[in-house]
Amino acid sequence: MRILMINPNTSSALTDRLEAAARSVLSPGTVLETVTAATGVPYISTRTEALVGGLQTLEILAERHQDYDAAIVAAFGDPGLGAARELFDIPVVGLAEAGMLTACMMGGKFAIVTFAQALGPWYQECVEWHRMQDRCAGIFMAEGAFSAIEDVQDEKEAALIELSNRAIKEGQTDVIVLAGAPLAGLAPRIRDRLAVPVVDCAQAAIRQAETLAALRPRGAESGSFRRPAAKPSIGLSPALEARIAWK
Amino acid sequence: MRILMINPNTSSALTDRLEAAARSVLSPGTVLETVTAATGVPYISTRTEALVGGLQTLEILAERHQDYDAAIVAAFGDPGLGAARELFDIPVVGLAEAGMLTACMMGGKFAIVTFAQALGPWYQECVEWHRMQDRCAGIFMAEGAFSAIEDVQDEKEAALIELSNRAIKEGQTDVIVLAGAPLAGLAPRIRDRLAVPVVDCAQAAIRQAETLAALRPRGAESGSFRRPAAKPSIGLSPALEARIAWK
Amino acid sequence: MRILMINPNTSSALTDRLEAAARSVLSPGTVLETVTAATGVPYISTRTEALVGGLQTLEILAERHQDYDAAIVAAFGDPGLGAARELFDIPVVGLAEAGMLTACMMGGKFAIVTFAQALGPWYQECVEWHRMQDRCAGIFMAEGAFSAIEDVQDEKEAALIELSNRAIKEGQTDVIVLAGAPLAGLAPRIRDRLAVPVVDCAQAAIRQAETLAALRPRGAESGSFRRPAAKPSIGLSPALEARIAWK
Amino acid sequence: MRILMINPNTSSALTDRLEAAARSVLSPGTVLETVTAATGVPYISTRTEALVGGLQTLEILAERHQDYDAAIVAAFGDPGLGAARELFDIPVVGLAEAGMLTACMMGGKFAIVTFAQALGPWYQECVEWHRMQDRCAGIFMAEGAFSAIEDVQDEKEAALIELSNRAIKEGQTDVIVLAGAPLAGLAPRIRDRLAVPVVDCAQAAIRQAETLAALRPRGAESGSFRRPAAKPSIGLSPALEARIAWK
Amino acid sequence: MRILMINPNTSSALTDRLEAAARSVLSPGTVLETVTAATGVPYISTRTEALVGGLQTLEILAERHQDYDAAIVAAFGDPGLGAARELFDIPVVGLAEAGMLTACMMGGKFAIVTFAQALGPWYQECVEWHRMQDRCAGIFMAEGAFSAIEDVQDEKEAALIELSNRAIKEGQTDVIVLAGAPLAGLAPRIRDRLAVPVVDCAQAAIRQAETLAALRPRGAESGSFRRPAAKPSIGLSPALEARIAWK
Amino acid sequence: MRILMINPNTSSALTDRLEAAARSVLSPGTVLETVTAATGVPYISTRTEALVGGLQTLEILAERHQDYDAAIVAAFGDPGLGAARELFDIPVVGLAEAGMLTACMMGGKFAIVTFAQALGPWYQECVEWHRMQDRCAGIFMAEGAFSAIEDVQDEKEAALIELSNRAIKEGQTDVIVLAGAPLAGLAPRIRDRLAVPVVDCAQAAIRQAETLAALRPRGAESGSFRRPAAKPSIGLSPALEARIAWK
Repeated sequence: MRILMINPNTSSALTDRLEAAARSVLSPGTVLETVTAATGVPYISTRTEALVGGLQTLEILAERHQDYDAAIVAAFGDPGLGAARELFDIPVVGLAEAGMLTACMMGGKFAIVTFAQALGPWYQECVEWHRMQDRCAGIFMAEGAFSAIEDVQDEKEAALIELSNRAIKEGQTDVIVLAGAPLAGLAPRIRDRLAVPVVDCAQAAIRQAETLAALRPRGAESGSFRRPAAKPSIGLSPALEARIAWK
Repeated sequence: MRILMINPNTSSALTDRLEAAARSVLSPGTVLETVTAATGVPYISTRTEALVGGLQTLEILAERHQDYDAAIVAAFGDPGLGAARELFDIPVVGLAEAGMLTACMMGGKFAIVTFAQALGPWYQECVEWHRMQDRCAGIFMAEGAFSAIEDVQDEKEAALIELSNRAIKEGQTDVIVLAGAPLAGLAPRIRDRLAVPVVDCAQAAIRQAETLAALRPRGAESGSFRRPAAKPSIGLSPALEARIAWK
Repeated sequence: MRILMINPNTSSALTDRLEAAARSVLSPGTVLETVTAATGVPYISTRTEALVGGLQTLEILAERHQDYDAAIVAAFGDPGLGAARELFDIPVVGLAEAGMLTACMMGGKFAIVTFAQALGPWYQECVEWHRMQDRCAGIFMAEGAFSAIEDVQDEKEAALIELSNRAIKEGQTDVIVLAGAPLAGLAPRIRDRLAVPVVDCAQAAIRQAETLAALRPRGAESGSFRRPAAKPSIGLSPALEARIAWK
Repeated sequence: MRILMINPNTSSALTDRLEAAARSVLSPGTVLETVTAATGVPYISTRTEALVGGLQTLEILAERHQDYDAAIVAAFGDPGLGAARELFDIPVVGLAEAGMLTACMMGGKFAIVTFAQALGPWYQECVEWHRMQDRCAGIFMAEGAFSAIEDVQDEKEAALIELSNRAIKEGQTDVIVLAGAPLAGLAPRIRDRLAVPVVDCAQAAIRQAETLAALRPRGAESGSFRRPAAKPSIGLSPALEARIAWK
Repeated sequence: MRILMINPNTSSALTDRLEAAARSVLSPGTVLETVTAATGVPYISTRTEALVGGLQTLEILAERHQDYDAAIVAAFGDPGLGAARELFDIPVVGLAEAGMLTACMMGGKFAIVTFAQALGPWYQECVEWHRMQDRCAGIFMAEGAFSAIEDVQDEKEAALIELSNRAIKEGQTDVIVLAGAPLAGLAPRIRDRLAVPVVDCAQAAIRQAETLAALRPRGAESGSFRRPAAKPSIGLSPALEARIAWK
Repeated sequence: MRILMINPNTSSALTDRLEAAARSVLSPGTVLETVTAATGVPYISTRTEALVGGLQTLEILAERHQDYDAAIVAAFGDPGLGAARELFDIPVVGLAEAGMLTACMMGGKFAIVTFAQALGPWYQECVEWHRMQDRCAGIFMAEGAFSAIEDVQDEKEAALIELSNRAIKEGQTDVIVLAGAPLAGLAPRIRDRLAVPVVDCAQAAIRQAETLAALRPRGAESGSFRRPAAKPSIGLSPALEARIAWK
């Protein structure tokens, strides 16, 4: 079983964090490979950046999808996930999607806890795109700046624990979802300091990708994720152009 | 990793079906054990029977939970799931829950397809308990009687395929969830005759139970699934009475 | 007109409280009888206990339903109500249901006020089962322990008034519903100390049971509460087994 | 206990129908009086007519509310109900409200069945004003014209039974609510020809008015139905002007 | 293009405020005329007063609709809007409707900010009638009394700015809608003191009325706003009686 | 007042259609300019293509926003609208948004009618992004292929009228929204053959853009559409890179 983890952010330090967290729960026999976006921003936090990252996801998949049994869009917010699901036949799962759905098996409502105010609007749109509002107790964002995105989970660790405790107290929170690629690997470390289960999205994502690969769903020929008919295009990467054109 | 699959129905033929489907996607190294309810009905299809089956789930878990890393409530409708989640520390996942959440990673809306009209009201309550209405395109039930519950999936195979195709055409259906313990193992067999992905709930449940066991969520001390305070009771099984009393 | 009030809790002191409150608004000519559960816990406050109490409701109704024109499930949370409604032909109303629907005729949104934190998760599920979320301004629970369940309404009276006032101020609360069998009879006593109408669920329940008996609805042969087809079972009380088997 | 039934329609033949249905389930000791609107249309079926009828309700209550323990707005659609509830201290219940809430105790979803297409838009607004969408399986309206509003229930009896059966089959209907003052008294007559319970709104309304009178809720001083502060006005009936001005 | 702005309040000072705000953004070539209600209250703030004002809207339109290309119901809460839309062929837009829909083009959620607590219940019903709950972040009302309705926007200016800032901070507010005819003209004045866009409802209403007049939608002959069939009535103004009777 | 209409499709024939429709209702004094995307597909109909078109919208606005008072994203589905709204200070309105919100002033529910099955999934996501589900009676799509996108409105005219009539009959449709840039200009032509109002999205969009320009909302510094903080990026167009970096 071969899984491709796509980091639509341009920071390879984040790719390393994501990969390490995923490997900590990898099943025997699974091959995990990673790729980092060449275009865009170090870490995605806005609608604008998600558009850029979403297109990166598609270009990477257009190049490499044939070699894998499943793929992961490894940014919370899942940029390009819907497009990838309609365009390619292999199962694709998003970091946010995997984290939220896994949390649903641990309680009725999850709180999304993240490291910066800037992420709120995009994450909210992500929750709504997945129609998960009824399961989400709120998005809780740490205040203040941080020094470096690759170490933000260390710098903000205390703040994130405090924020999680506030979510538990104020909201109707049964589970904490630590959101954002930069927080990959943090959940197991703070697990014992929270009064409810906490989900690491990178761990959830690799397990869910394996599950999808094991179940081997067929590519849709009907429904809202059926592959669109062939179309010509101008100015896209050759692999993406070819995929859209059924060439 | 040790998983207990609890069949709250009294039919051991159904337990065999469920186990076979689960084993077809079992990860290397996972130990799967099964148990069949001693009290109740051959297969649960009503609110009344779900109350009986739910209590069976609790009694079985009270006896055996210490020996497992996770458990499955292996009847669609998930009888006793909420109670089990508040009462025990190991992760517990329901057959319906696993099937529906796994389907969510394959498309926007799933249709529930099952073998008898009688199951509709209880399944509908299950969808609403999980707050999955926004992801569910409808519950589609085959008409007519059947000969024997243990072979209903063979007897109704053609009808279920036709019903699935109707769900795909009429509803806004991206994924089919074949619902009910008696249908365990059917999905892979009819996979190529449907135009959208189809989920086998027993396969989904074992993989999700493994995922929960791998992520090792802590037992909740807060939130709506925190373990209730100790209480005396009259007339329950000794193990369940002891669990409720924190003895 | 004969009404059976079923207390699914095992505390007969609570039965007395419920009966006294009901008798205070009983119509001339109505015969009210009560019964207390033999199995379970003194007062139900969790999903687990509601499963046990729900089965008690069914066993009692199986024994006695022929002698009454309507029945009341006299625990807030309405354990076994849905099952009772599908299994028996006489109208059955729940304590929570009667309280909430009666409150709906006094204002747009009601707040549920109760005596202990432990009741929240189960009450929330009850509100959702009745699809009353759009009418519910929240569940407000008193903090702290109490000495004895049969006198909790006296011990917590001041706290419940304060909590109601908070609900009125904070929430969008038009009506207070005092929730839980142990609070039966309290509403009329504190009526003049609250700025909005307050509903006593036991009073509401007996009046609504009388209304249902007066309207004499037929038992459903269609819809989601039609009586299920006959089925064999193992290990149930003889009367319940017979009812499920149409014997 | 004294109840005033206000018919906001100008047809006294409808008042007679409503009164007869109510009397069929009147509790011993209840005094029921009726009044018919002097201004407006024979039977209300549009938003425009409901505005006119709503103002009639207020003018009648302003004149007579002191003499009653509760009042009924006896047109489905409940014209003026919200205004009456904020302006007067006695409990007021609507025909639609009573019918729908009573139906909620007989099943999960009710279908509204009525005698003319023209009523649909206004009834839909009524359902939404009561935030009862989650309990309503649809509004089913008979096609075609009718001869005389006072006999429409006889003329359309067969059509209404057929329509109810369609609602039972097509919708997710557990209960039928026969809607519209002109249908008062029909439900008990066709009860045995439908496969689910059927609610007569006039019967439901008188019983619910009695229940409210028995529970004696206080007039709200807080919440969204608190009585508005005094205000001068021009051109209203003297009693209504005085009530609005707290004179 | 000729637009009629109907003030259903009896205060002509408010009419002047509304007109001045509308004229500040009037398109070249548009003729704007205004009319003030003869019956009712100086400014509408309750359900009762909205019934009275709604009927005024209809009577005025019945007299004058033939001379205009579109009309505005110029009280927040839109009294009589639905009835006007079904009864007349020219487009009619409400003050609240125009303000809310225009705000939707500036952000995801708007907060309604107004000058008195008394307006809350009616405004909430207005939001729900328009099915705009998913776009509304809340209704924020200034506390305390005021001296004169025609100058309340000056007296409460500081309080309204503070309240808007609270809405921005507490709620999920992208846009402020200043609500109530008495606030017409305030938004442009405080625009630079708020951190999000602010909508003046009178400005929005005149532009939206112009838009509707420009698009020239046909009067509905189908759907829920089709013109009702002719009906006789008693006691209405001659013009309204004639319109209802298709004379 | 200067408005930029951005066609994120690459077909300039569609730009011509859009412009002609907009000019038919242009206010005196408004300057309208158009631009056609250089990269992407002739007409956008999928999530994938919307990602590409969305990025085009941003690149064009980054180049040209300083010269306009408002902009239009002239593809139904509004690709890039949310990102544009957070990134630029001038008001931006989408073709779908303008069509749907304008339709809301003509009735309670609108039906979206379009020329091809392929557009359904993307349009549905658009409706949900705008949280307009409660106002949308459904998306109705013509069956079958067509010859050329620039003439599809002529080729499918009869089919679209028939489809609209079906929407009016089957759905709860008060207004028809003709959806898709290729249908610009069709609505006025078929207006008299439909029984409810019909909205031309290009007409609605230019009028709403004018309205926004006239109201001059300030750029948000708070809320979910505040401009994101500066960030470096790799591989974007120079103007877009500069805008994201606040250069």
